[in-house]
Amino acid sequence: MITLSSDFGTPYPAAMKGVMLQRTDARLVDVAHDFPRQDVRTAAFWLREVLPYVPPAVHLVVVDPGVGTERAALAVRAGDHALVGPDNGVLLPAARELAERDDATEIEVFEVEYADPESSTFHGRDVFAPAAAEIHEEGVENFHERDDVVATDEYEDLHFPEPELRENTAVGEILVVDDFGNAVTNLPGNLLDGRESVQVNDAQAPVARAYAEVAPGERLVTVGSHGNVELAVNRGRGDEAFGLAVGDEVRVA
Amino acid sequence: MITLSSDFGTPYPAAMKGVMLQRTDARLVDVAHDFPRQDVRTAAFWLREVLPYVPPAVHLVVVDPGVGTERAALAVRAGDHALVGPDNGVLLPAARELAERDDATEIEVFEVEYADPESSTFHGRDVFAPAAAEIHEEGVENFHERDDVVATDEYEDLHFPEPELRENTAVGEILVVDDFGNAVTNLPGNLLDGRESVQVNDAQAPVARAYAEVAPGERLVTVGSHGNVELAVNRGRGDEAFGLAVGDEVRVA
Amino acid sequence: MITLSSDFGTPYPAAMKGVMLQRTDARLVDVAHDFPRQDVRTAAFWLREVLPYVPPAVHLVVVDPGVGTERAALAVRAGDHALVGPDNGVLLPAARELAERDDATEIEVFEVEYADPESSTFHGRDVFAPAAAEIHEEGVENFHERDDVVATDEYEDLHFPEPELRENTAVGEILVVDDFGNAVTNLPGNLLDGRESVQVNDAQAPVARAYAEVAPGERLVTVGSHGNVELAVNRGRGDEAFGLAVGDEVRVA
Repeated sequence: MITLSSDFGTPYPAAMKGVMLQRTDARLVDVAHDFPRQDVRTAAFWLREVLPYVPPAVHLVVVDPGVGTERAALAVRAGDHALVGPDNGVLLPAARELAERDDATEIEVFEVEYADPESSTFHGRDVFAPAAAEIHEEGVENFHERDDVVATDEYEDLHFPEPELRENTAVGEILVVDDFGNAVTNLPGNLLDGRESVQVNDAQAPVARAYAEVAPGERLVTVGSHGNVELAVNRGRGDEAFGLAVGDEVRVA
Repeated sequence: MITLSSDFGTPYPAAMKGVMLQRTDARLVDVAHDFPRQDVRTAAFWLREVLPYVPPAVHLVVVDPGVGTERAALAVRAGDHALVGPDNGVLLPAARELAERDDATEIEVFEVEYADPESSTFHGRDVFAPAAAEIHEEGVENFHERDDVVATDEYEDLHFPEPELRENTAVGEILVVDDFGNAVTNLPGNLLDGRESVQVNDAQAPVARAYAEVAPGERLVTVGSHGNVELAVNRGRGDEAFGLAVGDEVRVA
Repeated sequence: MITLSSDFGTPYPAAMKGVMLQRTDARLVDVAHDFPRQDVRTAAFWLREVLPYVPPAVHLVVVDPGVGTERAALAVRAGDHALVGPDNGVLLPAARELAERDDATEIEVFEVEYADPESSTFHGRDVFAPAAAEIHEEGVENFHERDDVVATDEYEDLHFPEPELRENTAVGEILVVDDFGNAVTNLPGNLLDGRESVQVNDAQAPVARAYAEVAPGERLVTVGSHGNVELAVNRGRGDEAFGLAVGDEVRVA
């Protein structure tokens, strides 16, 4: 199984699929191709949330603002999984999460050195898709035996910002906003334990287990499916109701 | 085969696919993940139109404004098909249509009682996807033999509004607007038999078999692929030209 | 393998998939279903760029402003590939490219005459999808042996405009704008060989190999993955920065 993630929209992902299907009969599963353009952190967040639900697979990830520059192509082994993509940090949070869940193994990072790509603007098609297909065929355990695959300790990493948990107030930020308009913070969900309502910046809002526990159009604070505190509106957009966008500070008291 | 329908956008459907692929090797076919948010009726309409063209399958449907509340999880058997989703009516019109086409059998409705889901906001991933995968593996004929599957007569139903067919005027409403801007009514297509033009509310418009029978930008009234009267514009948007939105009354004379 | 391309959005492609899966177990690969509505030329451009990367397959293409009129249904053989769609030119550029790459064989064009479709507005479901599935099952080499498949020399063709290459200036036009906002011209990429910057209409812009060779927000001119001159902005939209849309003249000096 190979999953595909990118910020390509259409039809570029189909070229990547074609290139892979020249080399493998693997099942192909799209994660998303509408990640915000060149937004490495948002893609990294969603991959960390989604990939742990997928069976062992090779994960092709191409959010690559540095395409055509000297940035390396990486393959990261994380337990039974491998992630393939550019060296800009996008693979690391998901890789650590996958390794953690798989008997808490360590990730291993490799540079994948391929022949000259056909283009300097579409390495998804010319570098990463063939690499993902070949790693799938060679096997996640064995692919590092190739001469053009070299273990490395030097790579771009990416960590999400840690919240500041003070006695009466937790200070975090909006990590991403999902397609429903739910604003996902970096605050741990257990912050809401035993609370009936909380203060979010200047506004008071009820704590609810489900969106529909408040009236349509009303704000709520809940624990999202990722386990973090999430700012939402029943049948509406939490980001707009709370006036918050990605990167904004969130103080919960 | 398992089909997937939701209002999730991306990347949440990929988590559902991962969960299913932990349990089954079935082919997965996306119907749509961009149904209007929490719009049960529109999803129900499209599923009734599309699912009868699909071979026997399990159909996972998650348009679920009541996620996390006490609403049940349902599995509906309709001939060789099963539909899995929340108890809000979204499954019923398609289920009846599938049963009707399959030797006019009756639908059977079951409550599916699963263990506590991991989240209260993403039952697509935690409840419905595993249920759909397990029903697929157990078989549409056999899944009801499980202890946690219980036949029920108490469930939310959903019927589309019936048009009023008077002697000179048919009064209906806009059921949905498709991605082309075609406004689909609940009026039966045979209303247009033998007509060269009709009055739609205040406007006269030609009856045409094909969009291109009128000039680009011109309005027409036709029988859509669903068999209903449809208000359209050749190479344009019918909803805008006729000034009509979902739920609006349509009088055809 | 069968690929699917259309301007249908959702959920109509799922009906086409259902119809095909009634007839075949082939792998189905989406190319795009969000091609600009009824824009035959743009779809033809992308198919010519993408399909050569796909292994031998049947390619279902439904961008069909003439649906329901007398326009024929075509199947075009191009080496090991077949393309199925309406007779409006959309298949031809990709077919020629596929034939060219497959030992420079010639394309062969057939009219596919099927029974009366169920609808006059959705031949994707009623005509082209069943044709693609049956051609897949019969084989690209053999499908022409059917009585309802007839070779033809009379069909709509489509050629992209040729640029005018003068001594000091090349005059072309914008063929398409991709989802990133990159404006793709019909000018050959080798026009940029050895140049550090070029004049594009009234503006000077650097020539770069990769988007990230200029600062974020800055314009550049590059050779796109299709081999043509492309007008871009690093992490931004080239079409907006250069003020150019599809069909606009581009003078490069």
